[in-house]
Amino acid sequence: MTTTTSQLDAVLASVDAGLDQSLERLYELLRIKSISTDPAYAAECRRAADWIATELTGLGFDAAARPTPGHPVVVAHGPDQAGPHVLFYAHYDVQPVDPIELWHSDPFEPELKTDANGRKIIVARGASDDKGQMLTFIEACRAWKTVTGGLPVKVSLMLEGEEESGGKNLPPFMEANREELAAADIALVCDTDMWDRQTPSITTMLRGLVAEEITITCANKDLHSGMFGNAARNPNQVLAEVIASLRAPDGSVTLPGFYDDVAEISPELKAQWAGLGFDQAAFLGEAGLSIPAGEQSRSVLEMLWARPTCEINGMTGGYTGDGFKTVIPAKASAKISFRLVSGMQPDKIRAAFRQHVEAMIPADCSVSFHAHGGSPAITVPSDGVHLRQALAGLSGEWGKQAVITGSGGSIPVAGDFKRILGLDTLLIGFAHVDDQIHSPNEKYDLDSFHRGIRSWVRVLASLAG
Amino acid sequence: MTTTTSQLDAVLASVDAGLDQSLERLYELLRIKSISTDPAYAAECRRAADWIATELTGLGFDAAARPTPGHPVVVAHGPDQAGPHVLFYAHYDVQPVDPIELWHSDPFEPELKTDANGRKIIVARGASDDKGQMLTFIEACRAWKTVTGGLPVKVSLMLEGEEESGGKNLPPFMEANREELAAADIALVCDTDMWDRQTPSITTMLRGLVAEEITITCANKDLHSGMFGNAARNPNQVLAEVIASLRAPDGSVTLPGFYDDVAEISPELKAQWAGLGFDQAAFLGEAGLSIPAGEQSRSVLEMLWARPTCEINGMTGGYTGDGFKTVIPAKASAKISFRLVSGMQPDKIRAAFRQHVEAMIPADCSVSFHAHGGSPAITVPSDGVHLRQALAGLSGEWGKQAVITGSGGSIPVAGDFKRILGLDTLLIGFAHVDDQIHSPNEKYDLDSFHRGIRSWVRVLASLAG
Repeated sequence: MTTTTSQLDAVLASVDAGLDQSLERLYELLRIKSISTDPAYAAECRRAADWIATELTGLGFDAAARPTPGHPVVVAHGPDQAGPHVLFYAHYDVQPVDPIELWHSDPFEPELKTDANGRKIIVARGASDDKGQMLTFIEACRAWKTVTGGLPVKVSLMLEGEEESGGKNLPPFMEANREELAAADIALVCDTDMWDRQTPSITTMLRGLVAEEITITCANKDLHSGMFGNAARNPNQVLAEVIASLRAPDGSVTLPGFYDDVAEISPELKAQWAGLGFDQAAFLGEAGLSIPAGEQSRSVLEMLWARPTCEINGMTGGYTGDGFKTVIPAKASAKISFRLVSGMQPDKIRAAFRQHVEAMIPADCSVSFHAHGGSPAITVPSDGVHLRQALAGLSGEWGKQAVITGSGGSIPVAGDFKRILGLDTLLIGFAHVDDQIHSPNEKYDLDSFHRGIRSWVRVLASLAG
Repeated sequence: MTTTTSQLDAVLASVDAGLDQSLERLYELLRIKSISTDPAYAAECRRAADWIATELTGLGFDAAARPTPGHPVVVAHGPDQAGPHVLFYAHYDVQPVDPIELWHSDPFEPELKTDANGRKIIVARGASDDKGQMLTFIEACRAWKTVTGGLPVKVSLMLEGEEESGGKNLPPFMEANREELAAADIALVCDTDMWDRQTPSITTMLRGLVAEEITITCANKDLHSGMFGNAARNPNQVLAEVIASLRAPDGSVTLPGFYDDVAEISPELKAQWAGLGFDQAAFLGEAGLSIPAGEQSRSVLEMLWARPTCEINGMTGGYTGDGFKTVIPAKASAKISFRLVSGMQPDKIRAAFRQHVEAMIPADCSVSFHAHGGSPAITVPSDGVHLRQALAGLSGEWGKQAVITGSGGSIPVAGDFKRILGLDTLLIGFAHVDDQIHSPNEKYDLDSFHRGIRSWVRVLASLAG
């Protein structure tokens, strides 16, 4: 349904007038302790799913909390409409709250506070990640329904409860309900940040991931380094040589063929990123660093969004406790991951890595590999109509051109939408880097919540055409 | 006191008759969890020292567990005698027991088992290193005392509790008690192996040790490898590069000046070692290996006894638990030791190492060093009278000429005996290379224990002249 300007204004006015009620509903959801990783909170996860299904039913959706081998997935469908059919994704589960002693208030008793900068913030576990973000969309639907009796496009929702605990059950759920879910034209995910407090953004590039664990075995038992040192091969030494071989002095990854399928970003995108005014010194400085570690010929934004990396996420071998132990261990191991960019094939990278490592293992030693999953990078075509419409909606709300950004991280559900349902994903979120997600005193700016709702009102109108 | 053959035979018979009681006493000591490196076991170390002091007092020694800033040192003096005055050294502390899941029985509940070759073995942490070896000497004294009412020479003992944890407090203790301890003529240390199961040996060359712990810090907190991978320096990578740089492809250690003070062994010694019939394929094969890891131009015996080494005894950084965590850690650390040969100066090697590492640390990262002790290599003159007497005593027990060997290990106390007390040291032990010291399922052959006691009975008689 095409919407008029006066309709849109009325819906936005309804958002403003109903903000206190929207907040009350968010608080109700935040009070539910839906910590997915801890089995003790399974009933709370169930309660959160039921709460959401009830709310959506009240808004005219055909909604239900559907069982999985883990926590339920809420699926809801709005009435048919002309125009595109959107499938909205968010997650209702939250991270654990420890260390609880660092919270200034009860993580499950939301409070509206004022921060040091005078900003109103909603403080609670899940305020930002992801209950607050989820409700920006649902409250936008509510405002449309209140004012016009319906929604400007057909809306489905799929809201999961295991994002913070591995999310193993969602892909099989999507496979099992492929026909129903693939009826949508585009997926919308609300689980990301704005570019800055003034600038909305849509993330269109996400890096993929190949994760490997390797264990190098030399002797058949731990040896005394006095009795065997020099004679016996030390797996710590072999592992270090393997790891050291993965990066060249110029910061590039050395695996043969690693960059073969990596495309350069377009001059347009490069120019747009340059225009973002990203302060790489400030970005690194926040982490206590000053020298970018990747390919020295690239900007930090390129390194993060457009270039693959190899990171040693963990390594261990021998005695690592207090004091000293003069041991030559039998084994040493490492957890190594590769972040991939568009075009790179996870299987090919994994094979190149394994071949490279195997070639470095002495003949009387051995290496074993354990795969910890892999997913390709995701790129949303930057010339799509839905992307253009969504950008316009966001720009209208914030009075500033919305930007297209990348992300160095991986959001597996975006890959699943493409792989299982054939859907592109628009990642639109209103969180900020200082939201303390996964940490004590998580918060969501009241402004993120209020203007996030208003943003979705406009994006839905834009998508209706 | 000169001893007669019939006295000697009676004492040896007493050893045989009392073996079960000797074993019971060993078991009592093995049940005490005297892990010196872990502060949680400090009371157990104290208990082990008290147990030994009580035993020695019962044998007529003036014995006490004397305090140090760390674990106690047991010092005991027997009655005055004509002839040489020996100072016996061993250590009552033991290595940690991890990985505990690889033990087939409780490491602190000693058991007499039969190995695959039908040999009786005593299985427990410390059975060989060094409680079993310590008790060979004490039980030999007991047999002398039981049969003759005294000892053939004046015997003092100094038994420490920090050999496995750096031994920082022993040198100051020896300095503080120099006059009392330097009254001895020769030091005896029981912490080494026999050449093989038929051939007793006295070790006259010991490698020294420089132990260092390094911690490399990059970011000021753990980072997400998606959000920061490529941009932020990964300390695991830096540490791996440091470690990899320490060995050249030909197996040599790369530190500048590392081999400057290393002398070639004499042609005579080289010839004697060649005559030992050392089977390097069997030696490596026992550990499941076949390719020597050190300087490719050297024999394995040279690598172990006459060439310095660098070993990575432990390394850790990032997430090392089950599963996978996409973290770039703030820190990574390693425990690294150098074994030194005669002529090398520990301080010089430590300084060269630190300089080498510092030069490899990126400007926005840092490294800290923690010294875990250092000691020079030791060489005992091969023409001394005590050495000759002790060789004769050993040869008498085993019916085969005792040999003079080197050792790849470091026994810092031998250096301290020379430096602080002016004493040469005879290193006489009955352990075997398959004793699994520092590893799960440590054992001591019952034969090592029994004939070790008998050997000391004879060595004490030989030294009496």
